[in-house]
Order: sequence, then structure tokens, then C-alpha cells
Amino acid sequence: MTTAQYDVLGIGNAIFDILVRTDDVFLKTHGMTKGSMALIDEARAIAVYQAMGPATEISGGSAANTIVGVADFGARAAYIGKVKDDQIGKLYTHDIRAAKVAFDTAPAAGGPATGCSYILVTPDGERTMNTYLGAAQELTPADINAAKVAASSILYLEGYLWDPSSAKEAFVKAAAIAHDNKRMVALTLSDAFCVGRYRDEFLDLMRGNTVDLIFANEAELSSLYETDDFDKALAQLRQDVALGVVTRSEKGCVVANKDGVTAVPAFPVSKVVDTTGAGDLFAAGFLFGLVRGVHHEQAGRLGALAAAEVIQHIGARPQTSLKALAQKHGLPV
Amino acid sequence: MTTAQYDVLGIGNAIFDILVRTDDVFLKTHGMTKGSMALIDEARAIAVYQAMGPATEISGGSAANTIVGVADFGARAAYIGKVKDDQIGKLYTHDIRAAKVAFDTAPAAGGPATGCSYILVTPDGERTMNTYLGAAQELTPADINAAKVAASSILYLEGYLWDPSSAKEAFVKAAAIAHDNKRMVALTLSDAFCVGRYRDEFLDLMRGNTVDLIFANEAELSSLYETDDFDKALAQLRQDVALGVVTRSEKGCVVANKDGVTAVPAFPVSKVVDTTGAGDLFAAGFLFGLVRGVHHEQAGRLGALAAAEVIQHIGARPQTSLKALAQKHGLPV
Repeated sequence: MTTAQYDVLGIGNAIFDILVRTDDVFLKTHGMTKGSMALIDEARAIAVYQAMGPATEISGGSAANTIVGVADFGARAAYIGKVKDDQIGKLYTHDIRAAKVAFDTAPAAGGPATGCSYILVTPDGERTMNTYLGAAQELTPADINAAKVAASSILYLEGYLWDPSSAKEAFVKAAAIAHDNKRMVALTLSDAFCVGRYRDEFLDLMRGNTVDLIFANEAELSSLYETDDFDKALAQLRQDVALGVVTRSEKGCVVANKDGVTAVPAFPVSKVVDTTGAGDLFAAGFLFGLVRGVHHEQAGRLGALAAAEVIQHIGARPQTSLKALAQKHGLPV
Repeated sequence: MTTAQYDVLGIGNAIFDILVRTDDVFLKTHGMTKGSMALIDEARAIAVYQAMGPATEISGGSAANTIVGVADFGARAAYIGKVKDDQIGKLYTHDIRAAKVAFDTAPAAGGPATGCSYILVTPDGERTMNTYLGAAQELTPADINAAKVAASSILYLEGYLWDPSSAKEAFVKAAAIAHDNKRMVALTLSDAFCVGRYRDEFLDLMRGNTVDLIFANEAELSSLYETDDFDKALAQLRQDVALGVVTRSEKGCVVANKDGVTAVPAFPVSKVVDTTGAGDLFAAGFLFGLVRGVHHEQAGRLGALAAAEVIQHIGARPQTSLKALAQKHGLPV
């Protein structure tokens, strides 16, 4: 294992977010499942967009949001994801580079447009996502820069990568390179429906030690083990993966490994504006904690802090310096 | 004069806003004049964008913001402005139509990209704009739908239209059609530097009765009459135009005509986040008041209310229902 050039390298579906405030009636009228991520084709994307009110656009993508958060805390971060060489792809590329993330995946010259997620935010702050993968589907193993993966302390992957088939191959290739170089491989389960689609494969990744760290929320954990019994699911998670972190919204999170379980409270938030990116930013804080070598309780606190920041405004990228925020709260940076 | 189909028709440069929080050092380093709008070419746009941090994108354009505000209050609104048939043009078109504004200007098939303004927002909430006009320069008299102008009670024009030469011709054509149909023509002076570029022409428009109503802020009024003496400038304004409305930031506004001057206070705001669109939304509220036939003091209150809403968040389009807000404050809708 050589000295790392990057603390965390993320791989994910590069997605531009088109966010609009709406109400529950809209979700119902358009057959959307509140709080979930639905994959949509171009025709559905056009129909959903046409029905939506005026929007705000902010770069997104689950792993990308996490990596931007990691960089914002002050760690060295890199990202691999596919956009098209179109106007939205250029906005996306600008934003992630401007966030001090190393990003040089070649954009697709042809094929579908840069991926977009049409995100409906209800008055309770919950977000419902309709994702058109577009160019994100074009990510292939050839996009995995082996030297970059080998030179990153932690490889962070999103479960959503399992949707586009060539991205899945890229995922597997990257994980193998990381482990060959004695790096840590982390995976977020992404979405309960995503877990439903790939339950057995995700369990294989965990039980076969392809991943060392799992991030999940309660719904994803419940979907993974097909049980509503949280304690039972958590016990299974502890058997299946070296380190598991389960976020529980306002109840905080639990960090679990073979040695035990640590519960960490959430940061109080006066008003939840938009939960988009809450899990992504939690992962950013936790990963940053691992990078700095703090104990799990403090890593959980860093995660909770970043999640609290991102749910207080529209969009899944931090709008306040996470580093300054951590310092203000006496957390390690 | 036939019955109006639209209450207000706006014509302006259709501009997509790319907003980023920054500090005063950035403005200084890049030679920007705080609070102003600078026209930039494509090379400068690329350089400014590259230097900027991660951004948020929201449709903008001065007159378009006003028209969206008018529609949000509940009036019948239409807009004429030029985008290109590109990705950003499609986002722009979606947003203005989703705001219930009639918009059917043919997008440019070739030529420069949809116009963008790179907007730097400093911690004090002030915005500094760098505008690449792009496709907005392609607006020509042929884009002026004479029937639509004739069927609109108020024609609202922005001084920025004086920058692209063919847009200026479109402006003059529209104003003539409006007056031929006994409609009111309103003009916002847009920006103190814009006034500096076209002072004599703007004064000719006023003194020649091409415009009936002028919106200006203190800096624009001062530039128009080349004096820092507010009272002297206001007295001149009252001579030069039938109705003049001058906004004075936290001091509110004054509405002036030959009969007298009415001062209207601003709405108190707890924190100014981003002043982008403050003048535009003031004009929206005032125009809506005219549409509803209320007296000038109440029209000024409606303007102040809309301006207060828009400066409390990022972006120049309302994020709260202006109609509901007016009702809450006991103002006419």
C-alpha cells in the first residue's frame, strides 16, 4: 500500500438536479412514491418536467454529493462519473471541479444527454426523485482510472450504479483494484427500491467481502433483509459486513461492527426545507471522520452535522463551509 | 381600445442566471463593480465562470422576472424574449411557461447560446452581474407579435433592451403599437451604467411620450440626471414622464406624477440573502396594482412586498405565492 493521493474517490451516476417545490397531490396525480427514486425514460422525463412548476437547478448525483462534501470538509477528493459534452454536462463539470474535486472522466461525445433528476419537494421537506440516467448509462470499465483508484484511501460507490449495466462492471473493476491495493471499499445502498432490485447482488458484495463498509437508511436496511425488525436487521448487517452505518433521520444513526453498536444523535434542525442529499452528506461527514482517523462516534457526529446543513436549503450540495461548521461545533477537521 | 387579453406584456433580454455566493475580494480580483450589471463577451464569460465556485441556476432576465411576478400575483401575463433552441433555452422556456406566462417567441435555431448572467452574491446580499447576452441579441422587430402587444393593457420594457441593436428596434416597434392601441408603456431604467450608455435616448423616450411610466432606483435616477441631489432629480422626473416610481432600497419608494409625490415604506426583512431581482419584483407588484386599479400607495406596497420576498432567497423568481402573501398582508389581489 503506497501513500494515498486522494482520501476518498467516489464513483456514481452523474446527475443534474432539477428541483421544484410541489404538494402531495402532485405526487399522487403523477403516480409517484413519496421519498423514493424512480428511474424514468426520456418520454416520462418530458412529461414529468412539463407538469412541474418553475425549477431551480443544482448539480447532484448521490456519490458526487458525498464527494463534494468530503472536499468541503477539507479532504482530498476525486470523482468518476459520466456526463455528455452538452450544456448541462458543462455546468455539472464546472460545479464539481469548483468544489475542489478532481474530476476528469471523459464526457460522452454522442448518445443521450447528461442525466437529470426531476425532484419534487413537498412542504414537509421530503424529496421524490424521478431520474433520467441519460449519459450516466455510458459509464464503462474503461472510465475507471486504475491508478486513481489505487491511489485513493477509500473507494466510495453508490448502489444506483447497479442500474446501468456497464456501470456495474465499472463498479466491480474499481472495487477489485481498490482491494488489490489494500484500500477500503464503501457502498451506499442508495434507495429501498434499488435494494429491492439488487438485494441478492448487494448481499453477495457484502458477504464476499467486496465491500467493507455499508451506508444504509432504515428503509434500505429493512428492504435488504426483508424485515421491519430493526434490531434483527442490524444484527444481520453486523454479520455481513465489517462496518455498517445506518441512518435513522431525526433519531440519528448507529455505527455497527462485530465489536458493538454505537448510537449517535442527529443535530437538531429548526426547519427541514429539502431532504435531498441528506444521506449523501451524512456519508461525506462519516467518511471524512474515517479519513481523519477519529472514532466512530465522532465520525457519526460529522455525518450528522453535514446532513443537518444540507436539509436546511434546496439542493444536495453544501451551501455553508462544512469545515467551518465542524470547527464551530468543536468537531475534528 | 379593445378589451385586453393580457394585463401586462413584458419584453426583455431572456437570461439564465448562474448564481454563486462569493466575497468582496473575488469582485475586486476580477475587476467587477459591485451592484452593477456588466456586459461580457464569450471569452470573459468563460473566464468568469471558471473562476466562480459551485453555482445554482435559476431562470432570470429583468423583464421576465417582473412578468413572472405579475403572473404570480394572479394577473394575465405574457413575455417576448429570445433564447436559443439549446438545453438552457429549454430550461428557460419551461420555467416561464410553468409560471403561467404566455411565451411563444421562436427560439433561435443557430447563432450564440442562450444568454447567461454570472451573478456573484456577496455576504451582504448584494449581487454583481456579468451578462453574456448570447441569443438575446437575436431579438428583432419580427419577434414582436403586434396582435399580442395591441391586446395587452400595459407594455413593460427593460432599458437593457437598448444594448442589442435589433432589440432596440423591437422595443420601438412595440411601443408604437401599444400607443396606437391606447395602451400604457412602462420602462425600467435597468442599471445605472445602462443609463450612462443611453441617457439621451432614454430622456428622448420620456420627453417624446414614448413611455408613460418609468421605474428607476436612486442610482439610475442619479445617472439619468447626472446629479446626486435626489429632490432635484425627482422634480425633473416629474416633468419628463407622466408617472415615475423610484425605489430606494430599505427606504421604500416614491411614486411621482404631476399632481404630487407619494412615499411608500419598504417591508421589513430579517435577512437580505440576495438582492437579485429586487427591482424587477418591485415593478411586478406595482404593475399588478395598476392592473387592479388601486391607488399608488397600495401599488407601491404591493411592489415593496414582492421585493421583500425575492431578496430573502437566492434567485430572482418568487418562491412563495405572491398572491397568498398579499392576502396575508391585507393587500388587494
